[in-house]
Amino acid sequence: MHFPQGASREGAAQAAADVLARVRARGPRVHCITNAVAQNFTANMLLATGCVPSMTLSPEEIGAFVGGAQGLLVNLGTFDGERRAATEIAVQTAAQNKLPWVLDPVFVDRAPLRAAFARELIARGPKVVRLNRAEFSALTGNAPSREAAAAYAREHRTVVGLSGETDLITDGERVAAIGNGHRLMAKVTAMGCAGSALVAACLAVEPDAFSATAAALVIIGVAGELAAEKAAGPGSFAAAIIDALYAIDGSALIARAKVS
Amino acid sequence: MHFPQGASREGAAQAAADVLARVRARGPRVHCITNAVAQNFTANMLLATGCVPSMTLSPEEIGAFVGGAQGLLVNLGTFDGERRAATEIAVQTAAQNKLPWVLDPVFVDRAPLRAAFARELIARGPKVVRLNRAEFSALTGNAPSREAAAAYAREHRTVVGLSGETDLITDGERVAAIGNGHRLMAKVTAMGCAGSALVAACLAVEPDAFSATAAALVIIGVAGELAAEKAAGPGSFAAAIIDALYAIDGSALIARAKVS
Amino acid sequence: MHFPQGASREGAAQAAADVLARVRARGPRVHCITNAVAQNFTANMLLATGCVPSMTLSPEEIGAFVGGAQGLLVNLGTFDGERRAATEIAVQTAAQNKLPWVLDPVFVDRAPLRAAFARELIARGPKVVRLNRAEFSALTGNAPSREAAAAYAREHRTVVGLSGETDLITDGERVAAIGNGHRLMAKVTAMGCAGSALVAACLAVEPDAFSATAAALVIIGVAGELAAEKAAGPGSFAAAIIDALYAIDGSALIARAKVS
Repeated sequence: MHFPQGASREGAAQAAADVLARVRARGPRVHCITNAVAQNFTANMLLATGCVPSMTLSPEEIGAFVGGAQGLLVNLGTFDGERRAATEIAVQTAAQNKLPWVLDPVFVDRAPLRAAFARELIARGPKVVRLNRAEFSALTGNAPSREAAAAYAREHRTVVGLSGETDLITDGERVAAIGNGHRLMAKVTAMGCAGSALVAACLAVEPDAFSATAAALVIIGVAGELAAEKAAGPGSFAAAIIDALYAIDGSALIARAKVS
Repeated sequence: MHFPQGASREGAAQAAADVLARVRARGPRVHCITNAVAQNFTANMLLATGCVPSMTLSPEEIGAFVGGAQGLLVNLGTFDGERRAATEIAVQTAAQNKLPWVLDPVFVDRAPLRAAFARELIARGPKVVRLNRAEFSALTGNAPSREAAAAYAREHRTVVGLSGETDLITDGERVAAIGNGHRLMAKVTAMGCAGSALVAACLAVEPDAFSATAAALVIIGVAGELAAEKAAGPGSFAAAIIDALYAIDGSALIARAKVS
Repeated sequence: MHFPQGASREGAAQAAADVLARVRARGPRVHCITNAVAQNFTANMLLATGCVPSMTLSPEEIGAFVGGAQGLLVNLGTFDGERRAATEIAVQTAAQNKLPWVLDPVFVDRAPLRAAFARELIARGPKVVRLNRAEFSALTGNAPSREAAAAYAREHRTVVGLSGETDLITDGERVAAIGNGHRLMAKVTAMGCAGSALVAACLAVEPDAFSATAAALVIIGVAGELAAEKAAGPGSFAAAIIDALYAIDGSALIARAKVS
């Protein structure tokens, strides 16, 4: 089931539940080029969701890992020469294998060179670009808005996942707003990075990138709400959201999804 | 007390308890060349058990760290040029100092170059090779079995620790099967890597590599069972197994060890 | 409010509370060159305290990150060529921007080259050097004592934060002893590294380096005491101290600070 513009809340929630069920059934391999801060947490979030994560960066080996994966994340945090070389090979391998990939241009608002590299990468055809409002401004030169995101998505033939208090997802035609999540999510490092890895996991089982992105953000947002009920602060929350992702099922998504 | 073929369950459990007591008493320094995902969790697992971990990879410094250590782990996860250079120096230093070391050939089933490098390393004389069934097949070209593991151990004069639902340990003559552990252990990234680090810790205080490996796998397996009683999922389990390793004592091992 | 020699316990506690309030109000950006084991835990500790952490090491980007930061940590754990190059640029940028920085010479007692590099860095003017007793001996050639620390601080025009069962802080004239903390803090990897990052965070809002260091060590020590009341061992303690830092306020510091 896809996720057409104008889908009801129930339809969108059911679509997310379907994607989750496919992730669980297929256990996709998801390779992540991600930052040093995020590697462990991302691997645990992917394992809890039912995926098989790998994190190798070495130019000699990454081709083999990406070649055997069903999903790929390129996250620009703590970017360095090793990650740049790994990205070049990974993106080439993805193009050869028609493997969908997600770009997370972390902190492009803080380093101009990184923003330039992110623009080069967008020309290489990521299925999804997931970023926050400051990163969107730095990357596009425009204030973040529904219209600016849709224009950017159309121009670059990608899906934009713009995170914020409400997450906005658009492929240029369709737009979805997701209101799930909890404020403690912003207090755990690499939460956004792990969310982008979940987008890659959903893309591995759902060819419609808009639906895959919406599903991933509903899943992690609902997991965050469930985790907040158990947590005493951001430290226990980081463990609780992994527990929540492991336990979550379609009925929780259907009960709690806030999609409009 | 060693761990002869045909030891009773009680004898094997007592041997593991003795090794644990020596780790606690001596607090061995264990140097780990390990992957980026595993470094933090491995250090915390070693600290909880009573060791002093170090993780430096720099070619300029690793000789000094390994030279001052009582145990060494070489784990091939997220392998790269820095880790390859570090391994060369570490293995040389270990040979000079007669320092026992453990090889964990992570994901050799996913990257042929890594499997080739692992074969070179095995020729350098690790006391223990710890790996899962897919890695065993990739490394040896044989299906994983008691007989194949024993033959490999004899040929390479090493101890094989083959992990699975039941862990199999063999030096080619003796074979032990360890049934401890919990399914959540497979849902926490770097759990196997940390287990191999515990093997290195036990080797630091127990010269018989077969006994050291069996002790380490009993200790982590029992800790996993204790942790599962407290955990709500893999996130809380990762913290609980560190708590369990910190609290575990010989009586828990003697009560719970499943060795045959 | 500063922290003069001879301040009452109450005065010192109030000074720490004031610094904490400023960190919370300003949310300083703190850039950390830190070791691979510490990156995730340090980022979460800083986020919980109210800061915006960044961890990039790439020579191409670190100037931009440090140039936009209010605090900087240089931690020598898992030091390698990338971290050395990053440090050179970061320290230059800090000097140009009059940005205060903290040096944490991790494990200089284990590697002579690292000790030599630490001595070069001290000549570059860190506002604070935070280290344990073994590191102090290796760095200075003197046994750790109140007098030796004060002499070193005077000679190098820095503040020395000497950690131990009681933390000692001195700028050569003033000396404070802080008795807060809990023994589980020594059982969590990177706890000292995260403490030094908190010193950098406090330096970002408090120009008197002696007061900033005392405040940071009171804050983390009290957080450790609060965490120990919830923890079952070092695994749950690591999460609980992040929760405690997130929840801590001036009144907890005033009630619990042990400063003399």
